Amino acid sequence: MDALNAFFSTPAIRAIWTDEAVIAAMVRFEAELAAAQRDCNVIPAEAAAVIIDTCSTFTIAPARLASDARVAGTLAIPLVKALKSAVSGRDERAAAYVHYGSTSQDIADTATVLLARQSLGLLLDELVRLGDALAGQVEAHRRTPLLGRTLIQPAAPVTFGWKAAGWLDAAGRCAVALRRAADEACTLQFGGANGTLAAHYGEGQRVARELARRLGLAVPAISWQGGRDRLARLGGELAILCGALGKIGRDISLLMQVEVAEAFEPAGEGRGGSSAMPHKRNPVSSMYLLDAAYRAPALAGILAGELPSEHERGLGSWPNSQPVLADLFSLAASSIAAAVDIAEGVRVDAQAMQDNIDRLYGVVYSEGISLKLSALLGPAAAQRIVGQVCEQAIAQRTPVAGLLKKIPEVAAVLDADDIDVLAGPQPQIAACQPMCSAVLYQWQEQKTLIKED
Amino acid sequence: MDALNAFFSTPAIRAIWTDEAVIAAMVRFEAELAAAQRDCNVIPAEAAAVIIDTCSTFTIAPARLASDARVAGTLAIPLVKALKSAVSGRDERAAAYVHYGSTSQDIADTATVLLARQSLGLLLDELVRLGDALAGQVEAHRRTPLLGRTLIQPAAPVTFGWKAAGWLDAAGRCAVALRRAADEACTLQFGGANGTLAAHYGEGQRVARELARRLGLAVPAISWQGGRDRLARLGGELAILCGALGKIGRDISLLMQVEVAEAFEPAGEGRGGSSAMPHKRNPVSSMYLLDAAYRAPALAGILAGELPSEHERGLGSWPNSQPVLADLFSLAASSIAAAVDIAEGVRVDAQAMQDNIDRLYGVVYSEGISLKLSALLGPAAAQRIVGQVCEQAIAQRTPVAGLLKKIPEVAAVLDADDIDVLAGPQPQIAACQPMCSAVLYQWQEQKTLIKED
Amino acid sequence: MDALNAFFSTPAIRAIWTDEAVIAAMVRFEAELAAAQRDCNVIPAEAAAVIIDTCSTFTIAPARLASDARVAGTLAIPLVKALKSAVSGRDERAAAYVHYGSTSQDIADTATVLLARQSLGLLLDELVRLGDALAGQVEAHRRTPLLGRTLIQPAAPVTFGWKAAGWLDAAGRCAVALRRAADEACTLQFGGANGTLAAHYGEGQRVARELARRLGLAVPAISWQGGRDRLARLGGELAILCGALGKIGRDISLLMQVEVAEAFEPAGEGRGGSSAMPHKRNPVSSMYLLDAAYRAPALAGILAGELPSEHERGLGSWPNSQPVLADLFSLAASSIAAAVDIAEGVRVDAQAMQDNIDRLYGVVYSEGISLKLSALLGPAAAQRIVGQVCEQAIAQRTPVAGLLKKIPEVAAVLDADDIDVLAGPQPQIAACQPMCSAVLYQWQEQKTLIKED
Amino acid sequence: MDALNAFFSTPAIRAIWTDEAVIAAMVRFEAELAAAQRDCNVIPAEAAAVIIDTCSTFTIAPARLASDARVAGTLAIPLVKALKSAVSGRDERAAAYVHYGSTSQDIADTATVLLARQSLGLLLDELVRLGDALAGQVEAHRRTPLLGRTLIQPAAPVTFGWKAAGWLDAAGRCAVALRRAADEACTLQFGGANGTLAAHYGEGQRVARELARRLGLAVPAISWQGGRDRLARLGGELAILCGALGKIGRDISLLMQVEVAEAFEPAGEGRGGSSAMPHKRNPVSSMYLLDAAYRAPALAGILAGELPSEHERGLGSWPNSQPVLADLFSLAASSIAAAVDIAEGVRVDAQAMQDNIDRLYGVVYSEGISLKLSALLGPAAAQRIVGQVCEQAIAQRTPVAGLLKKIPEVAAVLDADDIDVLAGPQPQIAACQPMCSAVLYQWQEQKTLIKED
Repeated sequence: MDALNAFFSTPAIRAIWTDEAVIAAMVRFEAELAAAQRDCNVIPAEAAAVIIDTCSTFTIAPARLASDARVAGTLAIPLVKALKSAVSGRDERAAAYVHYGSTSQDIADTATVLLARQSLGLLLDELVRLGDALAGQVEAHRRTPLLGRTLIQPAAPVTFGWKAAGWLDAAGRCAVALRRAADEACTLQFGGANGTLAAHYGEGQRVARELARRLGLAVPAISWQGGRDRLARLGGELAILCGALGKIGRDISLLMQVEVAEAFEPAGEGRGGSSAMPHKRNPVSSMYLLDAAYRAPALAGILAGELPSEHERGLGSWPNSQPVLADLFSLAASSIAAAVDIAEGVRVDAQAMQDNIDRLYGVVYSEGISLKLSALLGPAAAQRIVGQVCEQAIAQRTPVAGLLKKIPEVAAVLDADDIDVLAGPQPQIAACQPMCSAVLYQWQEQKTLIKED
Repeated sequence: MDALNAFFSTPAIRAIWTDEAVIAAMVRFEAELAAAQRDCNVIPAEAAAVIIDTCSTFTIAPARLASDARVAGTLAIPLVKALKSAVSGRDERAAAYVHYGSTSQDIADTATVLLARQSLGLLLDELVRLGDALAGQVEAHRRTPLLGRTLIQPAAPVTFGWKAAGWLDAAGRCAVALRRAADEACTLQFGGANGTLAAHYGEGQRVARELARRLGLAVPAISWQGGRDRLARLGGELAILCGALGKIGRDISLLMQVEVAEAFEPAGEGRGGSSAMPHKRNPVSSMYLLDAAYRAPALAGILAGELPSEHERGLGSWPNSQPVLADLFSLAASSIAAAVDIAEGVRVDAQAMQDNIDRLYGVVYSEGISLKLSALLGPAAAQRIVGQVCEQAIAQRTPVAGLLKKIPEVAAVLDADDIDVLAGPQPQIAACQPMCSAVLYQWQEQKTLIKED
Repeated sequence: MDALNAFFSTPAIRAIWTDEAVIAAMVRFEAELAAAQRDCNVIPAEAAAVIIDTCSTFTIAPARLASDARVAGTLAIPLVKALKSAVSGRDERAAAYVHYGSTSQDIADTATVLLARQSLGLLLDELVRLGDALAGQVEAHRRTPLLGRTLIQPAAPVTFGWKAAGWLDAAGRCAVALRRAADEACTLQFGGANGTLAAHYGEGQRVARELARRLGLAVPAISWQGGRDRLARLGGELAILCGALGKIGRDISLLMQVEVAEAFEPAGEGRGGSSAMPHKRNPVSSMYLLDAAYRAPALAGILAGELPSEHERGLGSWPNSQPVLADLFSLAASSIAAAVDIAEGVRVDAQAMQDNIDRLYGVVYSEGISLKLSALLGPAAAQRIVGQVCEQAIAQRTPVAGLLKKIPEVAAVLDADDIDVLAGPQPQIAACQPMCSAVLYQWQEQKTLIKED
Repeated sequence: MDALNAFFSTPAIRAIWTDEAVIAAMVRFEAELAAAQRDCNVIPAEAAAVIIDTCSTFTIAPARLASDARVAGTLAIPLVKALKSAVSGRDERAAAYVHYGSTSQDIADTATVLLARQSLGLLLDELVRLGDALAGQVEAHRRTPLLGRTLIQPAAPVTFGWKAAGWLDAAGRCAVALRRAADEACTLQFGGANGTLAAHYGEGQRVARELARRLGLAVPAISWQGGRDRLARLGGELAILCGALGKIGRDISLLMQVEVAEAFEPAGEGRGGSSAMPHKRNPVSSMYLLDAAYRAPALAGILAGELPSEHERGLGSWPNSQPVLADLFSLAASSIAAAVDIAEGVRVDAQAMQDNIDRLYGVVYSEGISLKLSALLGPAAAQRIVGQVCEQAIAQRTPVAGLLKKIPEVAAVLDADDIDVLAGPQPQIAACQPMCSAVLYQWQEQKTLIKED
């Protein structure tokens, strides 16, 4: 059911985690290991040459590899066996130096990390695109009022730009945290049979450094086969990212309700139709955002739950890092793509937003009115007056401001202009501005952190 | 990374959930729907004939379908579109009756259920095989003593058969519960656009019954597109099964430790080797059992977490049922296969089990001794005496029985034969027998429930 | 932070799981154990009398017990020690028979099961109340149309009673499944040191049966200290129940949006206010429903994840069953109470429901119209006509029926009455009836299963 | 069941999250808010004085608060109401300025953050203690060989210090990551009714900064009521920490098996006994470590799963942050305390470690031997020779080195000294040293990061 799952993913991320790519990453590990060991005089240069050359063209059928792996308990054993056999066919002595001083988990984990790094490059690029698009919405709509909604009930207005600033704030922070977790996770795993590199007889650290350099990975203080918190943290950040972007989907799908109709996913040929109802326009990008948000935390929990592994290599608790992370990357890419789609193409109906505000006759300004009257007339009077005008406003379909002006107690302490300000959107719009600015400024800083070399 | 994941699965289960099989199940839904609607006079017989015939040869490339589905938001829309087009090529009027009165989720969910039922047939057959094999171990080893171990510390002996009875007890109960959840989950989803079958103008229930009959599924009281607890329950049972079988892997891998060496996974060419250490024999079946036990609960949690879906069709909360259940079935099949491997082939070293008991000089019988002495001499004296003999037994490498016999206080109330019984395995072995028998009897009953038509 | 958590719970369930109640359940186990052992002639009648009498007044300070338990690793050890000491104060010889042949986990697990059974009684009673209330809504509103909404977008109308039938269908099934899981879980745990009851020297099964009879619990085929799938299944059912009821909260909170305003939680003094906005009426029962639905699946996952425990008593994987199940019961009780609140008190605004339908000018009937025209004019023409009238209806604020009547192609094949039926709610309302009836009938059957002795 | 849960926690962390402490933190928020608003001329100084003074002695019964909160939907509403009433009793006008321009979630979230910060101080102190103790073990045992064990099967020896270095590596990294997440999470939540601080009419940012300064919290770019990734990340780090420390429990409990008997938890009066078996010494600290590792990831998943919340304040998705984080802190404190117990008091039996190595007759050195012979004689010969000597060594209970020396092919290329080195522990011990040093060095750097102001 592989191809059909592409539906919850993107072509770009799927191209990174193919069967062939995983095999290629494992083979690359073997080739670079031979090169590093040659450079450190651990294996003969001639053997290294044959190994490297053989690796450059080596392939193995994924289905066959998986079938043998089921017996062996790891993909690495049949792969190494096949590679040794290929090398042996050219130079029997060279075969002795294939996978020299390494072990299955070294290949498997380092391959996972290599593909993770490639995935992260892709994701971070898309996150920059997302952040820029969201920043554009913040700028464009920082003064476009719409109802704030708390517990899905109307509150005083915010602006659509301020709402987008909330999305950007979280997305930016998640992107920086993902970058940080990625930098940490992109660390070579290389320990040999028991993790100590003992079969390198004193040359282990040098080979490790050279191998890491060649693969573009960090060198750990100690091999991490049994200390996998970096991968759990990476998985956790992918899940938190999916969750944070999921909020965009939640919000947009609620705004896109026909009864609210304030903002819409971009339209497109064939997009979000219904097989039964010709008139439907479904929020499909929101759907992908929520799908990823529903699934990713559980997957990340698997990695965290497997941390208490046994001794120098746990049983059953590490081989699934590769498919679990592949799924997390796939969901994150799906999520980011859907968020970019919305951030770049959302259609905002400012008039509908205003209409929905107006339809509430100003009762949503009750916080400010109440505080002001409380200060002027005391809390008891304020509560009484605000309760009464809110009720009347809805019942009589009359704005709160007008009702307030007619109440002598209020008129005694507030003039009509004051009331219009209190019961109008301007203070709300104004209040959104410093937060919008702060988030935009913060995004520029975050972008630097995300993109730095 | 599809083929490589086969490593954590079995060929039989993977054959059920291929891209092609999912598509075939969706197409089958359409064909049987046409047949049912024809039989209920909802669509013309000629149209039904063309649709059914077209379905019998219809195919669509999975990758293309997934790509179109990403835009549409569901696999069903591009599939139905392509099918309509194929039917239209033969009879334009017939195309009007393709997918008549149905909707995307009807196809998607019913296809999932059809593949689930097929998977369950496979799993339940293998569970019967597992239960029979475990029952065989119970019989064979119901009098083979080995150390009981609580909190991974030695307790009084049990028998290996009794230990296997514990595995069988849980496996049998999980199989019955899975069968029950499966019977419930194998229910037609058919509701049309909003779930009411309104476009069938009064014929909805009849068509539903006929369609369900043709597909071999139960008919629900009400369409369940928004009430997906059956699938969550099915996922939950698969996870609990993986957890319960995971215990077999945990126990065997601990017994297989070189320092314990009491029971072993079956050996085999190329099985469980190490790419670094030629001498290694790794517990690979235990590894698959633990892998599934680590992953499945998280996946099941996704389905339960998605239950509070919106209105008549949730957003993002149902399309992933298919891949999530496919993964759960895959892990469960992997788990059962590994458990069968152990249950049928475990090598038991009864001598090693006895040696490990003997090496503790009888201190593991302290429960019974202590209770007896407590009754005879009072708790304070019993605690003192037992504490002392346990310490001496270990320090002096002398059996507890001999030490007890030399204590006058003890000798005054217990003769040597009594002491030998108290400090020996016979009461332990005897105690295991009724539980073994009860579990074996229970398994016969469970098997009937699992297999009944 | 114990009292404050009451906020997410109910007084009745909290009264079951107090510190004192847990201790009382453990003490009850010891008293009934002594009685059962007396009846089976395993311990002297005089000793049993003293133990039973001491238990009847025995108390221990929870904080002290917890503090000692931290050192001992289990609540049972300090509890048994204190109980022995109390018995010893009255009759030293009787103290020898306290907790005779039992072990810590026997007390802990059986106490958990006893409190679980009490909780289940409470929950099932409330679930019957919930089901009856929902059935009342089904009856009352089975012909009250409101928009169906799929992917949170408008679909053809359903009725509010049909919507409630969907809630009832799931709630009823979850209640039956919970009852079934509860019956299974309410099983005595009694195994002694290693699970075999060996220290009972042949009388173990008789004592177990008598003890179970006294406690009102089932007798297992084999002790289940290491085979905890019943508790995992119980936890899973509590989570699925919370998820299924969570849907009521999701739906009501969406219907209660000010822009939708079709149904409302019952109002009440002080209920769902805002500390900042005097006008607010928040959906607090929906909030509790969603809170429980968000939390319960994760808690249930803990129990399933702990199944692969080590040997005859796992390390760290069973003592937390008690607090985790206590939390799950607490959330489930909170959830059911909130659902009852809604089911009994929901305010339905049938006019608003009708207005929201009318506001869409009949485009939501496009499924039926499209199918009909497809059959009459072919799919291409149908799609063209329906697309056009839907667009016009919205743009011109004119009902679809009127537009259709003006199209000659349509008028040629459908008369005005046909069109009015196709573009009106009657077929939708009619379609809801058999499903409502089936669910109501099913509920009566489910209620019998839930309540049976 | 509050007191009894103390069993899985520590007194120090529990003292931070009492009902009273939560209430005190909420009241502190109100007092400091009044002070900040006074300093920014938002409320009159006299009113602030009365509020601050009232707060200094204000209390409310937790059970009553919880009961009222159940109706209101939040703890804050009844708390603020009671506080206003208390202020009003002293100065009615001052009551108008209680909770001025703030909202329930501001109090609830900021109180959570304040208690989180306090908890983090405690945890980080204990983590430093843990790291230092582990560093001590690394130093003390960096040359104490014990078997490496991969997939719970013997591999070439490592040293116990190296093993501890693996624990320290992960613990140190988790502590740094926790500190980082904590710094980020300790951010003021202050937004008023809709998050914009609009009721402060332009003074919102100044008040926010002053309030944050007073509470010692960071100021966010935008209020985070709907952007809760910081809390999810904090929860995630607590879970990953529990998982990483859980590995210490897993390893020690396996080493403490009577058949392995290489390392032991510290002994102590009443510690880890069995209520049934007087001789038992159970690994209770390992039990707490595993308990926390089993539970924490699920709890963290709740927070990540709730991220896609609705609009400006989600429904049901944020109030449980407080109890969920309280539970996570409680488990983390339990876990750290148990890890400190082991790290400071572990008893290492170096002789037993050596004996377990010797018992394998050198077959665990097969990696190095095999590589060397491969290089000298080719892979085929190497595999044959190593396979043969390993088998003979075990069967004949003879060291591999002696067997190798007798094989002419081997003797032709390796002299006796070479063989003794290859088949002996020295290269293994040597290989551990650079990794031990690197981890110790890294810990000094990590400690600086953890402790920095």
